[in-house]
Amino acid sequence: MHDVTATGGMTRRKLLRMIGMTAGSAAMYQAMTSLGLAAESNFTGMPALGAAPKGATVLILGAGIAGMVAAYELRKAGYAVQVLEYNARAGGRNWTLRGGDSYTELGGETQHCAFDPGLYINPGPWRLPYHHRGILGYCKQLGVALEPFIQINYNSWLHSHRAFGGKPQRYRTVRADYHGHVGELLAKATSTGKLDTEVTREDQQKLLASLQWWGALDKDYRYRKSAEASDRRGFDREPGGGLSARPEFSKPLELGELLDSRLWQTLPLGDLYDMQQSLMQPVGGMGKIGEAFARELGSLIRYQSKVVEIHQDESGVRVNYEDTAAPGSRHEARADWCVCTIPLSILGQIPINVGQPMADAIAALPYASSVKIGLQFKRRFWEEDDRIFGGISYTDLPISTISYPSSGFHGNGKGVLLGAYVWGTEAMRFTAMTPAQRVAAALAQGEQIHPQYPAEFDNGVAVAWHRSPFTLGCFGLWTEALRAQHYDNLCRFDGRIVLAGEHASYLPAWQEGAVLSAHDAIDRLHRRATSKGAMA
Amino acid sequence: MHDVTATGGMTRRKLLRMIGMTAGSAAMYQAMTSLGLAAESNFTGMPALGAAPKGATVLILGAGIAGMVAAYELRKAGYAVQVLEYNARAGGRNWTLRGGDSYTELGGETQHCAFDPGLYINPGPWRLPYHHRGILGYCKQLGVALEPFIQINYNSWLHSHRAFGGKPQRYRTVRADYHGHVGELLAKATSTGKLDTEVTREDQQKLLASLQWWGALDKDYRYRKSAEASDRRGFDREPGGGLSARPEFSKPLELGELLDSRLWQTLPLGDLYDMQQSLMQPVGGMGKIGEAFARELGSLIRYQSKVVEIHQDESGVRVNYEDTAAPGSRHEARADWCVCTIPLSILGQIPINVGQPMADAIAALPYASSVKIGLQFKRRFWEEDDRIFGGISYTDLPISTISYPSSGFHGNGKGVLLGAYVWGTEAMRFTAMTPAQRVAAALAQGEQIHPQYPAEFDNGVAVAWHRSPFTLGCFGLWTEALRAQHYDNLCRFDGRIVLAGEHASYLPAWQEGAVLSAHDAIDRLHRRATSKGAMA
Repeated sequence: MHDVTATGGMTRRKLLRMIGMTAGSAAMYQAMTSLGLAAESNFTGMPALGAAPKGATVLILGAGIAGMVAAYELRKAGYAVQVLEYNARAGGRNWTLRGGDSYTELGGETQHCAFDPGLYINPGPWRLPYHHRGILGYCKQLGVALEPFIQINYNSWLHSHRAFGGKPQRYRTVRADYHGHVGELLAKATSTGKLDTEVTREDQQKLLASLQWWGALDKDYRYRKSAEASDRRGFDREPGGGLSARPEFSKPLELGELLDSRLWQTLPLGDLYDMQQSLMQPVGGMGKIGEAFARELGSLIRYQSKVVEIHQDESGVRVNYEDTAAPGSRHEARADWCVCTIPLSILGQIPINVGQPMADAIAALPYASSVKIGLQFKRRFWEEDDRIFGGISYTDLPISTISYPSSGFHGNGKGVLLGAYVWGTEAMRFTAMTPAQRVAAALAQGEQIHPQYPAEFDNGVAVAWHRSPFTLGCFGLWTEALRAQHYDNLCRFDGRIVLAGEHASYLPAWQEGAVLSAHDAIDRLHRRATSKGAMA
Repeated sequence: MHDVTATGGMTRRKLLRMIGMTAGSAAMYQAMTSLGLAAESNFTGMPALGAAPKGATVLILGAGIAGMVAAYELRKAGYAVQVLEYNARAGGRNWTLRGGDSYTELGGETQHCAFDPGLYINPGPWRLPYHHRGILGYCKQLGVALEPFIQINYNSWLHSHRAFGGKPQRYRTVRADYHGHVGELLAKATSTGKLDTEVTREDQQKLLASLQWWGALDKDYRYRKSAEASDRRGFDREPGGGLSARPEFSKPLELGELLDSRLWQTLPLGDLYDMQQSLMQPVGGMGKIGEAFARELGSLIRYQSKVVEIHQDESGVRVNYEDTAAPGSRHEARADWCVCTIPLSILGQIPINVGQPMADAIAALPYASSVKIGLQFKRRFWEEDDRIFGGISYTDLPISTISYPSSGFHGNGKGVLLGAYVWGTEAMRFTAMTPAQRVAAALAQGEQIHPQYPAEFDNGVAVAWHRSPFTLGCFGLWTEALRAQHYDNLCRFDGRIVLAGEHASYLPAWQEGAVLSAHDAIDRLHRRATSKGAMA
């Protein structure tokens, strides 16, 4: 960890102020960037390991993002690399289900995806935040084309089956009315002197002016049926053209019913650091990243290879695996080093001779439960009827999320929604169902938001991550207490073995966590390999 | 105007409540939609005029959006239509400047756009809100492909040359800190009983819980350096992978400096009804819409035709025009009816025999001044250095706006920014400059936000709308007082002449205003034409 508070005895802030005051903005920017402040990140760019020791070999377990990043970079440095992958495809949770794909879950149910050409869902990750520079950097290097992912849509629905008689509300009305009421209440407290101990008189005036504009308050600092409020929440009758085109204003929800509805709960989601705009997605599905890595790595990846034992000694690492195309078969791979990216939910069931600290860490981490359901409909009724172009509707029903495609607007063919993104206890209930039952449940619940569902439904697929044979769950569920006890032990080298993956990061569930943990792991691997056995 | 308050003696609200209480959600939705409430609009779909009287003719002046919509729909109904257009291209303010294009402004300066292939700016409209169903409907009908337009980017810059020593702040920090301070102040007022007369005790508890989450407050309802605040405003050191990956939190701005900076002024922009997400843009530039209309209308449009007189009598309308390719030449066109979409700034200079009310209205409306400047750079440094993918940076310098392309992310070639969107008095100053001086000014100002400008600049173009020979301004600047006096007189038929365009709408500056005013105008024209002379 580099020091973020001091630079050669001078605080960074003082240094910056000095540079800013004695030179132009370009110098200021250069200084900020080189000190890592403008960049706000510990990301130090793509790895540049230098040359591998002659003949050094690395065995990588798992061709997900972490494993393939490690393979890609280690090969570049000159290591002889082999990757063992359980599935018949690369990517792991980086995965796009398209028409023609099949998927068999634990329990033996096989689904055949029947989406039309070009339509898909991403059962795993589906968003790329602008600050995830590792995974974005590989998109650029590998030529994976990106497009905007729309998280927030002011015209999407917020739904509670307990509020407003079950009638969904537009995001824009809930947002405008929450801001409006908050603004009005704070303006009233300010103008009646109730903030006198908190805020100077001068700042009170500035605060009032800001609240008026921010909250769409009228000249008396009230939030009410008005041009200002309607220009946020929408009109009862929109402004038009020609004669009889005058708009009619809309009436805000009352504070009490708004608070009761709890629909305000989703308002901050687009403010969260990982879900702030701009978000991006690969054109054609998140799986394009894994597919690009797989093309790049070619025969380095051995598919359908199920690891059954990992053994290390002073001379190297030996991994035994089964070729799943020939059940019962046994093969062996050997290398100087091993980067193991197998999810801990699975790794915990594989014999591996690591010390107690790492073994305890592997055993300690529970995995989150999640279910995603893709629904194909005969037409894009959400655009045609509801004018929803991308974005997400939220509900307090178990499906929680209905996400609309961020591309292909105005398409005349069929369309695919993410019809459910189920979490926690509800996800375990969905996991216990058959795939067909899950789809039926998503349809029954989604109909409360989109009554067009029954008439327009075509087909669906449902991925329950706890029934995924290659992860047995969605992602590692760290708590602060678990991190304090196990995280460093999980990440530290154990002899010739190092772990990587989202579970070995502070970015759980994100591909960026997989990338950065791989970078950190191979950096330490390389330092060990080149220091002739010294424990770096 | 259809009645929005009553339906056969029963208020709409009562009717809806009755339907909602006695039937399922589908019936509720159908009822809401058919009553126009769920649709929130007076938009009644694309025109379906029925058959034109045999041999009826219409002359349309201007092949902008309003004129081409009128021509397209009237032709469909069976009218014999001719369109006269001043420019050598269709679209009017619907216009995309690309490499190879030339543009000569009033005063004689000709600019030759030297952008690389695929790069462009839209000197006029550049955004399509989701609720602009008229223009979106034509995009669908004419096969104009759409993609997301990114308005809000949490990583873009907010800049005031008077605040923070001129150092730009990230949008996300200003937003998070404004919400945080507002939330903390209102939470304090609530919990110390200062809202007791405004809010019930029960609602106070709900309000507190909502503010904590919404404002990223800590357990004591304070907004301070914390995991919660950093998960909105960003980290001093981002969470990473492997060892030494723990994040470091960032410290919020203080309320006083935040209010002083006035950077909060831009926060509501993305909440405004016309700038709410989802916004869209045609793939390849806004001009794709005008180009598609022009293809569709073909030889109906006569280009390079400058209208010099408009004359009507009881038998029809006669328009005299000059072929600008043969200066001084005079031509004549005749028709039963005339839809005139010429901007009032120009129409006011053309002899036209309409009554005093319409003549006064034409003379009364001033036009907004605006300048847009496109800058091509050698690389997309805003993505590579600043991680800004689409969206807008705002500054209190005259350029006001720097907008980044919403597509083509990670491109390795050159890139084009909208480097200025100047308004009002400052726009008149820029209009007085030569195009080269405007570009130089945009570079000098923009360098304060992006120090990379001088090293990376390649070439630029600058459109000052008050020097546009075909509009003499940007759009009609209505006030409530002007509307009360002149709007209806502007829109009413005068004999055989009706006006259309954004100036004849409640959606000034928006293409939707042009579309809806054209719809309204041709609907009235058709009713007149088919009622054998009765004044509909």
